[in-house]
Amino acid sequence: MVDRKKEKPIPKPKQKVEKPVAEPKKHDIDNPEALTAKKAEFSDWYHQLIKVADVIDQRYPFQGFLVYKPYGYGIYDRFIKLLEEKLDRTGHRKVYFPAVIPERLLKKEESHIAGFSEEVFWITRAGKRDLNEPAALRPTSETVMYEMLSLWIRSWRDLPLKIHQSTSVYRYETKHTRPLIRDREILWNETHTSHATAAEAKAQIAVGKKIYSEIYEAAGIPILWLNVADVFAGAESAIESFAIFPDGRGLEMGSVNNLGQRFSKAFSVKFKDREGKEDFAYQTCYGISERVIAAAVAINGDDKGLVLPPSIAPYQVVIVPIVTKDKHELVMEKARNLKQKLEGEFRVHLDDREVSAGAKFYDWELRGVPLRIEIGPKDIERKTVVVVRRDTGDKVNEIEAKISGRVKETLDRVQKDIYSKALQNHMAKIVNASSRDDMKSVIEGGKFARTMWCGDMKCAQITEKAVDAHFVGFTEDEKAEGNCVCGNAAKHVGYVGKTY
Amino acid sequence: MVDRKKEKPIPKPKQKVEKPVAEPKKHDIDNPEALTAKKAEFSDWYHQLIKVADVIDQRYPFQGFLVYKPYGYGIYDRFIKLLEEKLDRTGHRKVYFPAVIPERLLKKEESHIAGFSEEVFWITRAGKRDLNEPAALRPTSETVMYEMLSLWIRSWRDLPLKIHQSTSVYRYETKHTRPLIRDREILWNETHTSHATAAEAKAQIAVGKKIYSEIYEAAGIPILWLNVADVFAGAESAIESFAIFPDGRGLEMGSVNNLGQRFSKAFSVKFKDREGKEDFAYQTCYGISERVIAAAVAINGDDKGLVLPPSIAPYQVVIVPIVTKDKHELVMEKARNLKQKLEGEFRVHLDDREVSAGAKFYDWELRGVPLRIEIGPKDIERKTVVVVRRDTGDKVNEIEAKISGRVKETLDRVQKDIYSKALQNHMAKIVNASSRDDMKSVIEGGKFARTMWCGDMKCAQITEKAVDAHFVGFTEDEKAEGNCVCGNAAKHVGYVGKTY
Repeated sequence: MVDRKKEKPIPKPKQKVEKPVAEPKKHDIDNPEALTAKKAEFSDWYHQLIKVADVIDQRYPFQGFLVYKPYGYGIYDRFIKLLEEKLDRTGHRKVYFPAVIPERLLKKEESHIAGFSEEVFWITRAGKRDLNEPAALRPTSETVMYEMLSLWIRSWRDLPLKIHQSTSVYRYETKHTRPLIRDREILWNETHTSHATAAEAKAQIAVGKKIYSEIYEAAGIPILWLNVADVFAGAESAIESFAIFPDGRGLEMGSVNNLGQRFSKAFSVKFKDREGKEDFAYQTCYGISERVIAAAVAINGDDKGLVLPPSIAPYQVVIVPIVTKDKHELVMEKARNLKQKLEGEFRVHLDDREVSAGAKFYDWELRGVPLRIEIGPKDIERKTVVVVRRDTGDKVNEIEAKISGRVKETLDRVQKDIYSKALQNHMAKIVNASSRDDMKSVIEGGKFARTMWCGDMKCAQITEKAVDAHFVGFTEDEKAEGNCVCGNAAKHVGYVGKTY
Repeated sequence: MVDRKKEKPIPKPKQKVEKPVAEPKKHDIDNPEALTAKKAEFSDWYHQLIKVADVIDQRYPFQGFLVYKPYGYGIYDRFIKLLEEKLDRTGHRKVYFPAVIPERLLKKEESHIAGFSEEVFWITRAGKRDLNEPAALRPTSETVMYEMLSLWIRSWRDLPLKIHQSTSVYRYETKHTRPLIRDREILWNETHTSHATAAEAKAQIAVGKKIYSEIYEAAGIPILWLNVADVFAGAESAIESFAIFPDGRGLEMGSVNNLGQRFSKAFSVKFKDREGKEDFAYQTCYGISERVIAAAVAINGDDKGLVLPPSIAPYQVVIVPIVTKDKHELVMEKARNLKQKLEGEFRVHLDDREVSAGAKFYDWELRGVPLRIEIGPKDIERKTVVVVRRDTGDKVNEIEAKISGRVKETLDRVQKDIYSKALQNHMAKIVNASSRDDMKSVIEGGKFARTMWCGDMKCAQITEKAVDAHFVGFTEDEKAEGNCVCGNAAKHVGYVGKTY
């Protein structure tokens, strides 16, 4: 299972990421030079791309803290807005809870603090004075929220209570950091629900899973949902979503946790049911983070740069005027008109910089804008424009008068096609294996092994040692058939592979 | 001038707000009891209202850190969305910068760190180990951002650069805290702009002022813009906006600061102009916080509760079905239909709880929902509904078929009327004073004194001592006439009063 607790010596603040990344060649828009090829060296390609496509800036002088540039934050902001809309429509209400947690609160649920104890940032001073009690920067908000829920929840009438917030959490990662994958400040949304019965809490797990599945699909990311044994500190059970990266490694994305009554007992979140009987609330929590950007970059990007699905693209359409000396103003005017026509319905950018059209093509391909519209003197004569898809490179002449409808249709198609293609790649990354030798060669070939599993953790541990990879988890969504690699009858379908 | 630097001994973490607040009587929705009257005891009324109207919960066990309840966060969320839309339309781009600042960065601009040194929360430990260098929780983001801007800005082509973020800042207030007025975690939006010339930066100040003025008007808050001498730490000049509270005290709201080249020199934010000459960028920053909620509560609330303008109300319309035993299902069905009809265009809530209609009226009046629609068996027969305005209490029968249009018109009128009424009250709170004795009696009468001022800070200080209030600032928007209270010719119009 994924080992999140493993400790290494704490690196010094200014230490660099684990291996030197090939520096992208000097980025000059009039003289574009290629990224490292994605297939040749995935990790270099990834690190270069998030830099040159203006996703994040990693040069902030505190290891593991990222600066989100306007373009990169634009992707995250779209993602969070889509998520919040979905949460809102399903009865979750947005709140804000403090980022600072007094030590005694954090310690109330013992397995929880044990799970985070090595990772907590502690505030010990204010101005020049020591605080009476150290306070933690939130590593997650259970303890903050549940202390208050014990005051808010009194009766079955107060339940279910479903709240969420979009904030940052802080974890002093002792593993090597990787931008958008393992940081010390993590942008995320966390949801917390309280219910009157265990059955309701269980049903809520399915709701959380559905919301996340939809949002991943919107972001173009195919997902493997797995039950994991290494659950969130304090949870009873957890399902976690994994994206499979081009290098064959799984990235743990959002997780949906059934907390049972462990926190409600620790924090005294009690209610009286319809009959007046007192019980502790049944709770769930789910979280989804900036890793969705990492996955959106890694899964769909290509050798030219990002490939963003329209739903999370900061700009869905970029207009590039093809100007000539004598027709400059005419073309610019048409381009501005086109922008006006489209901007009520789509996120449109008109690139009116004084650089060559070729440089503009390069720039917006790098940034993954789903559609480019070119308009030049000849197009104006013909009353057409050229529409180019980023994902396929397809170039089509469209009648200018019908452009709004055609852009809508094309964006819808791009949205679907990006996900379909990603799903195809995802499926191709999963290979059945019926022995540990099989698994080993599947994993060494940069893929994920799907296998039958007896359900015994000891067997999973033997597998992990034998294949030098993680027994990532198992699923109840697929039916187990035949035998486990140990020869016993299979209970579940399990997945084994390398993970980040 | 407003003295933000004055120090008092640091209170212990669990210390309560400065004076005991009259506890609101037990809140029972079937048995509503009145708030303290706003006029009788404004401060008690304010503290009770933000509690019983579910704006915030003050019981979090760390003084100065608030929990925003779903309803209260709904108000802030609307406000921030409106602001971000305005910033977006005026070319500001959303970013995210770390919340944690290494000590050496914070110290780069000396007057800046001096201004915040007593208020900074310091992180000194991670897990069980000491950090090599203490890190601050952001008290504001100049130092974080400008370190990176020095890497982003190279040429005049990179300017102007206008970025903003909606986050929290952390200040260990040594004054008594007051919810939404003086907290230790402050929700806010901060904008930072960099320009190629001093003239451009100056023009940007006017842009910031205009955006904030519009957002205040949307929130129903009349504002006094004043130039202040006690500027933001590190700024060259500042204009600050003040709301005048019902008790006659001014609350400093958003501020717009001209930073000149002080930070750009400290952080080496340099660019080459069109001629290739190097210069430091000219910068501005502006910030606006959760105080807008405090003002929206305080300025427009009444003895029944909040009065929210539609633009920031979490629900703009609440539907209350007036059910009878025999017509229960008919009424509920009509109410659901009505909700469906309105919810595409407005933020609508259908209150289908099993409590009396009277209790529902009480609840939604307390929470300040702009319009209430009542629908009962008689209304159904007549094909009408009853529409009640929260701000005036006006009750009108409307034809059900025309309801969408009528709701729109009424909400527009409510939006305007709330601001007009507030503006009238605001103007009535400002009284001309031509001597220090005049001022003293104006201020003792719970108002703000407007006076002519010679422009000499020493004269302002003599005034402050004589009247036991602050010389809050002066304005260049109004023309000075006649003499200052000291007898010298007036240069500016000044404002003197009590402040929070």
